[in-house]
Amino acid sequence: MKESLNVFSTDSPGYLRLSSIVGAENILSRPEDLIPYGFDGTAALKESAVCVVLPRTADVVAGVIRFAAAEKIPVVTRGSGTGLSGGSVPVKGGIVLCLVHLNRILEVDPANLTMLCESGVITKAVDDAALPHGLFYPPDPGSMKISTIGGNVANNSGGLRGLKYGVTRDYVMGIEVVLPSGETAWLGSKCVKDVAGYSMKDLFIGSEGTLGVITKVLLKLVPRPKARRTLLASFDTMEAAARTVSKIIEKQIIPCTLEFLDRKTCKSVEAYAKVGLPTEAAAVVLMETDGHASVVEEEAAAMAVIARENGAISVEQAADEAHAVRLATARRSAFSALARIRPTTILEDVTVPRSRLVDIVSFVEEVAIRHRLDIATFGHFGDGNVHPTILTDETDHEEMERVHEALSEIVDKTIALGGTITGEHGVGLAKKAFLPRQFDEASYSLLKQVKRAIDPQGLLNPGKIFDLDGADS
Amino acid sequence: MKESLNVFSTDSPGYLRLSSIVGAENILSRPEDLIPYGFDGTAALKESAVCVVLPRTADVVAGVIRFAAAEKIPVVTRGSGTGLSGGSVPVKGGIVLCLVHLNRILEVDPANLTMLCESGVITKAVDDAALPHGLFYPPDPGSMKISTIGGNVANNSGGLRGLKYGVTRDYVMGIEVVLPSGETAWLGSKCVKDVAGYSMKDLFIGSEGTLGVITKVLLKLVPRPKARRTLLASFDTMEAAARTVSKIIEKQIIPCTLEFLDRKTCKSVEAYAKVGLPTEAAAVVLMETDGHASVVEEEAAAMAVIARENGAISVEQAADEAHAVRLATARRSAFSALARIRPTTILEDVTVPRSRLVDIVSFVEEVAIRHRLDIATFGHFGDGNVHPTILTDETDHEEMERVHEALSEIVDKTIALGGTITGEHGVGLAKKAFLPRQFDEASYSLLKQVKRAIDPQGLLNPGKIFDLDGADS
Repeated sequence: MKESLNVFSTDSPGYLRLSSIVGAENILSRPEDLIPYGFDGTAALKESAVCVVLPRTADVVAGVIRFAAAEKIPVVTRGSGTGLSGGSVPVKGGIVLCLVHLNRILEVDPANLTMLCESGVITKAVDDAALPHGLFYPPDPGSMKISTIGGNVANNSGGLRGLKYGVTRDYVMGIEVVLPSGETAWLGSKCVKDVAGYSMKDLFIGSEGTLGVITKVLLKLVPRPKARRTLLASFDTMEAAARTVSKIIEKQIIPCTLEFLDRKTCKSVEAYAKVGLPTEAAAVVLMETDGHASVVEEEAAAMAVIARENGAISVEQAADEAHAVRLATARRSAFSALARIRPTTILEDVTVPRSRLVDIVSFVEEVAIRHRLDIATFGHFGDGNVHPTILTDETDHEEMERVHEALSEIVDKTIALGGTITGEHGVGLAKKAFLPRQFDEASYSLLKQVKRAIDPQGLLNPGKIFDLDGADS
Repeated sequence: MKESLNVFSTDSPGYLRLSSIVGAENILSRPEDLIPYGFDGTAALKESAVCVVLPRTADVVAGVIRFAAAEKIPVVTRGSGTGLSGGSVPVKGGIVLCLVHLNRILEVDPANLTMLCESGVITKAVDDAALPHGLFYPPDPGSMKISTIGGNVANNSGGLRGLKYGVTRDYVMGIEVVLPSGETAWLGSKCVKDVAGYSMKDLFIGSEGTLGVITKVLLKLVPRPKARRTLLASFDTMEAAARTVSKIIEKQIIPCTLEFLDRKTCKSVEAYAKVGLPTEAAAVVLMETDGHASVVEEEAAAMAVIARENGAISVEQAADEAHAVRLATARRSAFSALARIRPTTILEDVTVPRSRLVDIVSFVEEVAIRHRLDIATFGHFGDGNVHPTILTDETDHEEMERVHEALSEIVDKTIALGGTITGEHGVGLAKKAFLPRQFDEASYSLLKQVKRAIDPQGLLNPGKIFDLDGADS
């Protein structure tokens, strides 16, 4: 696909035309300015675009796409570049369309429990704007202080509250999207129920920038929970931790957070954040319940009992809000803490049905030993979403071969357990080769049929999720 | 589109081949046997298929679709035929594929909170199967005792609990679908989070049988609420009722049900069901809160206070569970009660942002007077989803002209208020002409691009939602 596209250059007449569309002050093309836009949060993936354009309005975005469509130049859209699957890594010879300046919150509507904002608004700013109205935007991806809401929608980002509150998709009521033709479409509405036509909005959510450029999002908000309780339980076996989680759900308690960290992750987080995490337990589970004060008390007490009955070595309740925030922040720092240990950090994102958690975590431990690799695992126990994190060095080719073998085995095991190769990070470049293992032939082919129908020139984020030229591995 | 398809007949060689695929005992073709399959729950829409096939397995469904694809024969899929937009009305010369015999519940998995069943299972049977596990399937369309789960998924059905629990889409984790080629695809997984590839499952949910034939559904279940309280408040103005609903949500109470009935609906339901509904109030609101016992008590008390403060004439709490069920059943019988009054009942389904409810209800009242029509209105106040119900006679052409004029005006007003032409009934045939008024050109065109990509021969439910031949009105 890529080969069939014209290669764009800064000395072409087209480049001048592009400058006239976005304004020379909103375009970067010096090699040193392009470097920070050459990668995202994913290890070992880099590429160079011809230029980066930073439009300030949706109309300019549409102008850029019309230009790209006419000139057949590939476009990769990005926000803050916090992605973990290489989805916003540039395409050589293409344009990077960076939307961080589309950063206005346009409306908070408490009567309808909605917020309308541009796609470059920072995720945390969305929730901050809901707060004064007593409202809440629950999705909280690890990078929420940096990531943009448009990037979250394009990747259907998850977070720590998935079990109770769901993921980004569950909070998107509408989007404004610039299509590959340069036309602008509004998909969805402020109505709680709307079945007019296919749910095209749901097709664009999670399409990783391959079908259109999201310029505005209409979000659903919910009442802010009035109380919460945070507990930290430690276990000397992973099985005991998993059994506790199962029993909690069996007792029909749906906490907002059920995060776990293995011994290696705990040690590394404690060395980094010093919040008093147990460093000798096989597994630590961070449990949080929120909602009505009396229910929260009852659920926290019940979870503590369940944890002790199922073999917890210790169960500690956060003394106050500050302590609870410290514990949650420690969990959020797992990736950063682990990333300090070795030069390259490869963060996996496999997800299994909740009942198969012990199987996948044990398998990862076994794989680490067999391939002599340093793997720490943490993740969202309540969602079956685990992040085996391989600490390695991309310049060590022999070790990297073992890494790739290990990743491949983890993926196969996940699929055999009825799981998915990616719970919340997306396919992008990093998981592209694995996708055909998970999908049956008909489902895989559907993805390409839809891509070809909506982006017939293949200009938007080409080569991500799948290849159109038959180069699927 | 229809004209380009071969017309199928029972004396063709193909008919024999079709019998050999589904078995002669599972095929109906005598005119008198076809009559009940010639319409659905929508007024004034009828058509005749060549035959009705009733397969008993998904493999046979795939065989029928492969046959139809090879012979270019249109196929209309249906379950119990309770649809309210003509979505399952046959196509002349085509096959009706009726899935009511695919009626097995294959698995209830309490550890993962899921249920796997075939698409012909009755909606209420899904919830009945969840009950012994203490689990709950919340979507409750009005026809839940008759409708099939596959039909609910194909139409993304709503119900009375939308505000708190969402709609069918929110409970579908996966589907097995036979594509127009006859290939079978599995879309989705048992994972709470799954972002592998486009969410094709969401494209098929609500696609009204135009993209594929759903043969299995994997549903999400939730813990069954332990307590509920039901209140009935009556008001002498619609504004007071709407203000009460707004204030409830402003106080951050999200009840599971906020149903309203206007005076005409109340009178008619009371004459039919005799449950003691007030028949002189301008509006009656049925409020139900469910969940934890102490929260439910608190919320019910708060809602009663809010209703009184905002002008309720009376607020009554259901004395016990039996009384609560009687009230809910009375509300559920609104359509049947109204349908007894005149020969033809046209049930509208417009939906607006919640804050615009009074505007649309008042407009409907004004339209009824202006066009001298008998219109009763009830619906889901919490969702902004109203069902103006026109009581008329389809044989009276002069009156029907006024009906169509009134419907057209109600649709235009709804769109002007930021609403949708259909909140839960679908587009089908009944709303097809209105869809281009709601969608911008680019969004409308996207629907057709996707249809052409997935069903290039246009064989599945042709002519529903939109026409492909440029005959869009």
